[in-house]
Amino acid sequence: MADIEQDRAVRGQDPVLGEQDRAVRVAVLGCGTVGGALVGLLLDDAEGIAQRSGVRLALAGVAVADPAKHRGGVPAELLTGDAKALVTDPEVDVVVELIGGLDPARELVEAALGAGKAVVTANKALVAADGALLAATASAAGVDLLYEAAVAGAIPIIRPLRESLAGERVQRVTGIVNGTTNFILTLMAEQGASYEHALREAQRLGYAERDPSADVDGHDAAAKAAILSGLAFRCAVVGDDVPRQGISSLPAADVASAARMGFVVKLLAVAELVADGALSVRVHPSLVPSVHPLASVRGAFNAVFVEGEACGELMLYGRGAGGLPTASAVLGDVIDAAHNRLTGAAAPAPPRGPARLLPLSEVRCPYYLSVEVADQPGVLAEVATAFGRHQVSIRSMEQDGLGEEARLIFLTHTARDGDVQATLAELAELPAVRRVGAVLRVVGVVEEPPLDSAGHPGIAAGAPA
Amino acid sequence: MADIEQDRAVRGQDPVLGEQDRAVRVAVLGCGTVGGALVGLLLDDAEGIAQRSGVRLALAGVAVADPAKHRGGVPAELLTGDAKALVTDPEVDVVVELIGGLDPARELVEAALGAGKAVVTANKALVAADGALLAATASAAGVDLLYEAAVAGAIPIIRPLRESLAGERVQRVTGIVNGTTNFILTLMAEQGASYEHALREAQRLGYAERDPSADVDGHDAAAKAAILSGLAFRCAVVGDDVPRQGISSLPAADVASAARMGFVVKLLAVAELVADGALSVRVHPSLVPSVHPLASVRGAFNAVFVEGEACGELMLYGRGAGGLPTASAVLGDVIDAAHNRLTGAAAPAPPRGPARLLPLSEVRCPYYLSVEVADQPGVLAEVATAFGRHQVSIRSMEQDGLGEEARLIFLTHTARDGDVQATLAELAELPAVRRVGAVLRVVGVVEEPPLDSAGHPGIAAGAPA
Repeated sequence: MADIEQDRAVRGQDPVLGEQDRAVRVAVLGCGTVGGALVGLLLDDAEGIAQRSGVRLALAGVAVADPAKHRGGVPAELLTGDAKALVTDPEVDVVVELIGGLDPARELVEAALGAGKAVVTANKALVAADGALLAATASAAGVDLLYEAAVAGAIPIIRPLRESLAGERVQRVTGIVNGTTNFILTLMAEQGASYEHALREAQRLGYAERDPSADVDGHDAAAKAAILSGLAFRCAVVGDDVPRQGISSLPAADVASAARMGFVVKLLAVAELVADGALSVRVHPSLVPSVHPLASVRGAFNAVFVEGEACGELMLYGRGAGGLPTASAVLGDVIDAAHNRLTGAAAPAPPRGPARLLPLSEVRCPYYLSVEVADQPGVLAEVATAFGRHQVSIRSMEQDGLGEEARLIFLTHTARDGDVQATLAELAELPAVRRVGAVLRVVGVVEEPPLDSAGHPGIAAGAPA
Repeated sequence: MADIEQDRAVRGQDPVLGEQDRAVRVAVLGCGTVGGALVGLLLDDAEGIAQRSGVRLALAGVAVADPAKHRGGVPAELLTGDAKALVTDPEVDVVVELIGGLDPARELVEAALGAGKAVVTANKALVAADGALLAATASAAGVDLLYEAAVAGAIPIIRPLRESLAGERVQRVTGIVNGTTNFILTLMAEQGASYEHALREAQRLGYAERDPSADVDGHDAAAKAAILSGLAFRCAVVGDDVPRQGISSLPAADVASAARMGFVVKLLAVAELVADGALSVRVHPSLVPSVHPLASVRGAFNAVFVEGEACGELMLYGRGAGGLPTASAVLGDVIDAAHNRLTGAAAPAPPRGPARLLPLSEVRCPYYLSVEVADQPGVLAEVATAFGRHQVSIRSMEQDGLGEEARLIFLTHTARDGDVQATLAELAELPAVRRVGAVLRVVGVVEEPPLDSAGHPGIAAGAPA
């Protein structure tokens, strides 16, 4: 890929690092938003990266669909259209896959691992579909497979889960992992915007695609939920196994009602240990108490909230997307892989067992339910009877007048999802019920003493407002 | 330390890990709150840790001052009074120093590194005083020196700075790194409590020592600021070099005034790159805008906010103290060191240059100043003249009546600290000035478009509320 002069320069003695160290040669697949930003960092700041990290990186090549196309700042001789040849080039140490999607990314990653290269990828679809398998392939080859950028962009979450919390008994991981939907929900909450208006605004600002379904229907968050739960609970979870509910049918009125009741609506990826060691992984719009740390995550920001037996509550917050923030996470992985390359080690990758996933119908949590009814005597009794018949206990109810109709808003105690769905099916059959509206799960509610309570530990259990 | 039977068990074939893997033997120095919690995890959850992390740990011994004292759950044969012998025991792989303070911790850590052991420590005083030197010793010996727990307890901050952000051009690190003072400030802000009342409450709940000076005078935060800045900016910063201002003279009235103006008062450790590559590291009570992510960190929680050129804004949040949370961070380091032990590698530790620290008098930021004056005509003109004489530009002023006196509250534009101090000295000499009150730096103010602005990127720059 590189000429002899360049090769000498990168393999020769290094004034910063000492003579035994050599440059680690990095091949980049894809030169879009993230790839372009990474290539820019590698070309423009090579000396700074070497000084800060102690590792010298050399860009060995960039595989693109059309190598003839001019890409400002990238020397033409580094561009190639033959990604397959690049990933198996004996001169390459680390392959960075930034093409996205399953095909041809999977084949290229497998080829790179098979050729003994370390692989860094930001490809959430690939890791969510084949992460455990690829990790086993990498482990068997004694090389790294790193994917910090696949979840929550610049936020260090994969490495903390894999290393800092390697011994931790994690109980629950709750994440705002999709910036598009969090932007939309922030606009709905703070400006009373309708979903449609907020979506158009997100599209206008470049936060949402023209076809927004991957984001608003929860596919993207489900892939990230699979990756996070696999790491946190050391098992193999596949994106397609994650039940998901999106935000596209969320009425603005329910966002406002939730706010009056002290909650913020967030699209959450939830992975938690439930009874008997089974795991529940799911994506759904949720009511989060406004004093919960996740409630304060606004706009396109992401955050992942981790609860563990020893560590307590942690939250990692930052930009979940964007070329430079994502490239920053990729660069951290590249440096890690390069360091391991020089020392002959690889990141720890304990084997993962299969996940035992609890069906959604068995998951238990409190619910927010809104039901539009005819405003006539006896309706509440009818509705309440339906709840009772399915063992769904009502914690509070409030009524919103709507002219001849009324909107009943229920908060339930913890209930089984199957029972709630059965209740809703029965409600939909009642003549007085016009429509079942929002069905939202309540997350992050804990009974804790107020700040001024005399009870120890009081504030230690207090979440930020 | 261990008998032959136990030795065989830990060195023999391992059903979980495969036959080439062996247990890594861990010596713990100190069995207080954190040491006791760590020993508990190592003894009670050895199998779980092995399964989750892929590394089997065996407790080789626990050095305590009085080995005859009964410690529930710790087998007597593991206790020793001879820490020096334990750290050089050829059977020991990893030494965990949880004694705290400089002496004898430093000598024991040096002995362990000299004997080729990896060292994990939670000792902020030691790392703040000798971190760069000890890191060089460890690096020369090819072993790990890890100290995730020395800053912000359970929060993964050292590893993200060292690894995830290894290539990042960090611009600023701003941390709430002392839970005691954050608890006190939370009580002052949310309940209007006086400093003295809030301190007593913190002492009653066990969040403050009987002699609270290490916390409230900023010594603890300064040590952590030195550690964070050394890592973030790859240089050697010593705790004693960090200028600090504590919270013990903070009037409740100024906390309330700050709230009215949209700010929360926090004791912050700040480390930032300033002009010409110089570094400013300091600890002081600060006004943080209430929409800034750090403003929502309440009670005894800690958080570290990182700003970098590529990564943008990150915040890492969690419990900053406590036996189990701190032991969780230590355990993550022990597993990391054990993994490296088995693979023959060590964590990257790029060499650090000396820090060029900007004197505090040269640091520039906006200020909040409160000045108590006689309520008489012409006073404001006199005061304003003093500001002008020292090039301190006033952004806003408000007046609080106090009977015959008035409290003038100024927010300044960005000003040089030396000029502000000269202004205050001149004010103190004015006959109409009764007292100069709170002098607080304003941190985290950025000019950014509101959420609904048409200007791109709008919300991407928005901080959580």
